[in-house]
Amino acid sequence: MKWLDEIKWTDDGLIATIAQETGTGKVLMMAWMNRESLQLTAKTGHAVYYSRSRQRLWHKGEESGNQQIIKDIRLDCDNDVILLEVEQKGGIACHTGRHHCFFKQLKDNQWLEVEPVLKDPNDMYQNQG
Amino acid sequence: MKWLDEIKWTDDGLIATIAQETGTGKVLMMAWMNRESLQLTAKTGHAVYYSRSRQRLWHKGEESGNQQIIKDIRLDCDNDVILLEVEQKGGIACHTGRHHCFFKQLKDNQWLEVEPVLKDPNDMYQNQG
Repeated sequence: MKWLDEIKWTDDGLIATIAQETGTGKVLMMAWMNRESLQLTAKTGHAVYYSRSRQRLWHKGEESGNQQIIKDIRLDCDNDVILLEVEQKGGIACHTGRHHCFFKQLKDNQWLEVEPVLKDPNDMYQNQG
Repeated sequence: MKWLDEIKWTDDGLIATIAQETGTGKVLMMAWMNRESLQLTAKTGHAVYYSRSRQRLWHKGEESGNQQIIKDIRLDCDNDVILLEVEQKGGIACHTGRHHCFFKQLKDNQWLEVEPVLKDPNDMYQNQG
């Protein structure tokens, strides 16, 4: 797969990946992919990341149901960042139950939480704990 | 500066930073910041990154004139990614002379360059070479 070889992977074999919502243009989240997860993402049309904390593939929405359907896959000038255009199932990308992960706004030298929780995380991850 | 202490810096003291254009919603680029560059960004209202290759602060637009004026600074749920909303001076964020850095689109297992060069990089960086 030549297109995968063209990517400048980190020493850990990863690439930073930004997910942007189609339509709204919201930047939903940033996560990491390895070679296998990017290949699966392109092949299946669903976002598959690599969880650094759990050290395994992370099929986005595998527990919450909030899958990301791929509309477009872009690579940047330096070949070391991926930008996905996605349809966000359930309208929730963040594990906190918010629409997207960037809900802390810098104001007067403080991070303020400025976006509402749309769904209780306890209801999103019922198999946990 | 408590707000800087809340950030989960990498082992190298950096944080991944996404710049999104105000108005268009275009994701322009991803770069890295260290503590000093983020503090300067917040203080001056101009994006200041940290260049890993040059190992020094990188005042965006210092050579090209294509500065980024800060409209909003967000932090994600894990405190390890910054999202900037910026006004892109000159309409060019990418060192290749394109509007943004994500100009390679995956199609049929190939990366296709799908965005035009708006300005010759030789005219953007006249002090180089």
